[in-house]
Amino acid sequence: MAVVVQNIPRADKAIIERLGKAGVATVHEAQGRTGLMGARMRPIQQDLTIAGSAVTISAPPGDNWMIHVAIEQLQAGDVLVLAPTSPCDMGYFGDLLATSAQARGCNALIIDAGVRDTRDLRGMGFGVWSTAISSQGTVKETLGSVNVPIVCAGALVNPGDIVIADDDGVCVVPRENAETVMAAAQKRLDAEEAKRQRLAAGELGLDIYDMRPRLAEKGLKYI
Amino acid sequence: MAVVVQNIPRADKAIIERLGKAGVATVHEAQGRTGLMGARMRPIQQDLTIAGSAVTISAPPGDNWMIHVAIEQLQAGDVLVLAPTSPCDMGYFGDLLATSAQARGCNALIIDAGVRDTRDLRGMGFGVWSTAISSQGTVKETLGSVNVPIVCAGALVNPGDIVIADDDGVCVVPRENAETVMAAAQKRLDAEEAKRQRLAAGELGLDIYDMRPRLAEKGLKYI
Amino acid sequence: MAVVVQNIPRADKAIIERLGKAGVATVHEAQGRTGLMGARMRPIQQDLTIAGSAVTISAPPGDNWMIHVAIEQLQAGDVLVLAPTSPCDMGYFGDLLATSAQARGCNALIIDAGVRDTRDLRGMGFGVWSTAISSQGTVKETLGSVNVPIVCAGALVNPGDIVIADDDGVCVVPRENAETVMAAAQKRLDAEEAKRQRLAAGELGLDIYDMRPRLAEKGLKYI
Amino acid sequence: MAVVVQNIPRADKAIIERLGKAGVATVHEAQGRTGLMGARMRPIQQDLTIAGSAVTISAPPGDNWMIHVAIEQLQAGDVLVLAPTSPCDMGYFGDLLATSAQARGCNALIIDAGVRDTRDLRGMGFGVWSTAISSQGTVKETLGSVNVPIVCAGALVNPGDIVIADDDGVCVVPRENAETVMAAAQKRLDAEEAKRQRLAAGELGLDIYDMRPRLAEKGLKYI
Amino acid sequence: MAVVVQNIPRADKAIIERLGKAGVATVHEAQGRTGLMGARMRPIQQDLTIAGSAVTISAPPGDNWMIHVAIEQLQAGDVLVLAPTSPCDMGYFGDLLATSAQARGCNALIIDAGVRDTRDLRGMGFGVWSTAISSQGTVKETLGSVNVPIVCAGALVNPGDIVIADDDGVCVVPRENAETVMAAAQKRLDAEEAKRQRLAAGELGLDIYDMRPRLAEKGLKYI
Amino acid sequence: MAVVVQNIPRADKAIIERLGKAGVATVHEAQGRTGLMGARMRPIQQDLTIAGSAVTISAPPGDNWMIHVAIEQLQAGDVLVLAPTSPCDMGYFGDLLATSAQARGCNALIIDAGVRDTRDLRGMGFGVWSTAISSQGTVKETLGSVNVPIVCAGALVNPGDIVIADDDGVCVVPRENAETVMAAAQKRLDAEEAKRQRLAAGELGLDIYDMRPRLAEKGLKYI
Repeated sequence: MAVVVQNIPRADKAIIERLGKAGVATVHEAQGRTGLMGARMRPIQQDLTIAGSAVTISAPPGDNWMIHVAIEQLQAGDVLVLAPTSPCDMGYFGDLLATSAQARGCNALIIDAGVRDTRDLRGMGFGVWSTAISSQGTVKETLGSVNVPIVCAGALVNPGDIVIADDDGVCVVPRENAETVMAAAQKRLDAEEAKRQRLAAGELGLDIYDMRPRLAEKGLKYI
Repeated sequence: MAVVVQNIPRADKAIIERLGKAGVATVHEAQGRTGLMGARMRPIQQDLTIAGSAVTISAPPGDNWMIHVAIEQLQAGDVLVLAPTSPCDMGYFGDLLATSAQARGCNALIIDAGVRDTRDLRGMGFGVWSTAISSQGTVKETLGSVNVPIVCAGALVNPGDIVIADDDGVCVVPRENAETVMAAAQKRLDAEEAKRQRLAAGELGLDIYDMRPRLAEKGLKYI
Repeated sequence: MAVVVQNIPRADKAIIERLGKAGVATVHEAQGRTGLMGARMRPIQQDLTIAGSAVTISAPPGDNWMIHVAIEQLQAGDVLVLAPTSPCDMGYFGDLLATSAQARGCNALIIDAGVRDTRDLRGMGFGVWSTAISSQGTVKETLGSVNVPIVCAGALVNPGDIVIADDDGVCVVPRENAETVMAAAQKRLDAEEAKRQRLAAGELGLDIYDMRPRLAEKGLKYI
Repeated sequence: MAVVVQNIPRADKAIIERLGKAGVATVHEAQGRTGLMGARMRPIQQDLTIAGSAVTISAPPGDNWMIHVAIEQLQAGDVLVLAPTSPCDMGYFGDLLATSAQARGCNALIIDAGVRDTRDLRGMGFGVWSTAISSQGTVKETLGSVNVPIVCAGALVNPGDIVIADDDGVCVVPRENAETVMAAAQKRLDAEEAKRQRLAAGELGLDIYDMRPRLAEKGLKYI
Repeated sequence: MAVVVQNIPRADKAIIERLGKAGVATVHEAQGRTGLMGARMRPIQQDLTIAGSAVTISAPPGDNWMIHVAIEQLQAGDVLVLAPTSPCDMGYFGDLLATSAQARGCNALIIDAGVRDTRDLRGMGFGVWSTAISSQGTVKETLGSVNVPIVCAGALVNPGDIVIADDDGVCVVPRENAETVMAAAQKRLDAEEAKRQRLAAGELGLDIYDMRPRLAEKGLKYI
Repeated sequence: MAVVVQNIPRADKAIIERLGKAGVATVHEAQGRTGLMGARMRPIQQDLTIAGSAVTISAPPGDNWMIHVAIEQLQAGDVLVLAPTSPCDMGYFGDLLATSAQARGCNALIIDAGVRDTRDLRGMGFGVWSTAISSQGTVKETLGSVNVPIVCAGALVNPGDIVIADDDGVCVVPRENAETVMAAAQKRLDAEEAKRQRLAAGELGLDIYDMRPRLAEKGLKYI
């Protein structure tokens, strides 16, 4: 049952880039509030947004062997996404693996486990979102799989799905939905800008969204 | 039972500012170690201290409707303080609401739940202390209340109370105690400065506070 | 049973410095993956690495009296390491105690509990790794011990052991093992540099470490 | 600031008993979903429901001195409710204190901290809801207060308030609201019984509550 | 995007019953250690094992409206499986909903959120595995979906999948794999019984599994 | 560095039995409040107390190979105590291993990780204290050690130390201290019985322990 799926399809780079610019919160809203990883997934750096195609790894707890296998499958712009088959906060990934990934054009890792060498990773500009930071090393004894569907921090990720990550968290867009999600995201961005200007000018959301009648109807009392 | 209390009394701005300068640790000690929110309340930025009058929000889990209602009640220097009626880490608040709050002179939020757009919020200079960061959006379906007493991260907050927040956490000073707490805080600050100089010069706390006799009496043995 | 052990032996400063430069992940590997504190031990600052001789404190929960006692035992280059006898997230340590410790040449604290005045501590260049940040003050009522063996964040620390801490966590090296651990660490550092260059040049770990035959033998399938 | 308030008012025993019989979930609903303690407050026994008047204790972390003080204030039917001033999982209470409380007619404890001797406590029929179980003992060094307002597991408790606890958790009813809350609870109980019979007979909530039109209006699609 | 999928296919009752008898640990091993929900999913009762076809519910946090919708879709032997779209410990389900589900032949719920009326649920023989117990009620305001794929406590569940739950946790078997997984489980059961007898007779695993040579080869030293 | 220490010394069976009868809370107090494991270590059964000599296991995360090795070292009355070298909630131990341990006269396991087959284990009368319950299986790939010092749930355990466990938790008594700790425990037990009778008769702790003068001196005010 340990497999490596090669030559997975990926989304168009232009749409991936646009989704990244839209950001996690907007994209998550645009696809009906689905695909968000849990809030325990946190960046090790600040002010970085990334977007790319997921190369997925299902790894045994405390065993990072499959990362080496996955790196061979990387193409420029890919993002490594790893879920252990049981909760684990060990340090699966450090500066050597990042060097290898970067050599293939991959600049980010999303991992529902731990990483180490975090200072070096920040220095290399390699983006990491993880659920732990730990120097505890792993072994290379048990097989897992590469490019199979995984559940990472509560979100289903299929290989080739688009992963977007920023300071607010990580969101997964199914590859086949990229265009429609981006269209919906663009609408939100356009609408937001207009609202931002009105709010900055002192108008209230109560009025912009015409909330007062419904609040009264539900029974809100002003004292 | 959903109410909005308007025109709450607030403390004097000068005393609020002085309490902010004293900082959370000093103020908390000065009022007998009461009013501190739990340590899970963390800032999304570093090196910012704020102080202001609490406009309180009791909101249903996953529903941020009442924030729009609360913003209308804001005056310059106010701080929004939100407690959900059940634990929730969803993103109640982002850059649009912050824009609206800033338009009324409010520059900080204390929330026992999640926020999003954290990079933008930092960029706007809008201070946030929260118990989660999450892109997960909320709905606007169920009423809550504004300016009623709430329990936020374990601390009781009455509307108009003074809220102080810095890198160490968040502390609440009941409005009517502001002067006496500030007087006690000032005494601590004055005493601390003298102690700091003696400690920096190499004197020991054991001697400055005359601890040796009591340690011996309790039975401490040096080997 | 409350004791202060004076004049503990310490490791040589040169070896301590070298272990610090090797960093937590490398040292932890070099000594057989032992001595690592749990991942809940986090730095309050970024990009700081320290190494020093442990002056240990066993303190009652919520009582920081023994820190004053321990400071008298400090020598230049020492690191304070505190474990409460029951879990506690209160703020045992702040800028005044740090001032006192710095006056004796100690510039770091490792504590399985809370600290406060974190902004000031960062400003002073005093390194802190803690399991909580809290303004909640402690009392000075119950004795503990100084320079006895303690379990801190899951790791056994004997007084005089070498403590290394960086962005990835905290590792303890038994004093008597310093030389052999450093020798093993140096080997790893030398080997890593060569590997880093090969990986950066695009070689794969699969080939450098000759993993392909063993992966095939275990049954990995490429699809 | 350490005080013991004597002779607090209590609610009528008959209404307390009726609220206990209604149970936590019903009472919590009946008073507008307020007053519930957090879900980390768990019983050490199964299938026990209690209700009584709160004798409150604000205690320092790791210090159970005030429980002795509080026991003198107990009357038959009272419930001890303790909140530490900082999170603490130590064992504040065991079989000796329970023996003393029972001698005064108190048969239950609600504590946002730890207890010990849990097997004996169950054997004595002394009901306990706590946030931890721990043999770790406490000291008797620092004052706290008895019968002052406290925040316990996120709920505000005033002395004399009615506390109801069962397998689902703990709810606090302000003393002055006892009658109105019980009236609302009774209405719910009456309505529930009718609904239970219809549901048991196979009628659907969709029909009993006439949900189908609103579901359709909101856009629910059947496939 | 809110849908109710009707008439989902289900596995054969005989195979479901056999999987239930095999138990969670055996089935999980038999399908290659996949499909296990996280350890935070705990039973509210002891010594109960259930197995059934999953009727899945994707519900908004704090909103149990879709449970009413799902109950109409239940057939005898089904198990309700609910995942909120954001973490939530509120009490979605109590004795009234259980009465309604039981009227349709459903006797179990798996929920990555809270339940209430736990004493009644145990009394009714309605099995529950949940991640929280809470009296906190939910609203009926926002749509979700019924019988769509969900991620529940970290495991992917498709409608009609077989869910097995016992004192050790909850495991999901994809419907189409039922026969092959059961065949593998049976092999394990047969092998286990033989091993149990040898172990009970005092033979060592070291010898039964012929571990000694490999332990020696890896370098284990006996002292 | 992977070793098995054979023929460890053990304490006298009579003293072990007496410590078990004293119970965890009393023994922990009797040895100066040391040796207690953290409160996350919980029994899978109720109303069971055990005491025995520790056979310790240091195991890699997710790898239970060393349990097989340890079982060969068991003597009647021993208790298995396992600490993983990194946090792990996988199910290291189930009914087959328990059968094997029981065949050698061992009837209890203390494990800072997960167990499975909990219903069977209770049925066998095999006592378990663990930090997790999980069906997730482990591998047999990496060596650990048997009968070396370990840190388990925050407590240092040397092989041959006496381990006592009951409903309140787990406490470790160093083998060489058994007699003196038991003497101190006996004193406590004798004193407790007298106190229990006075408290049951209605005397107050305030009077039995003569607390009133010291409370007044510290400033407690009765209102």
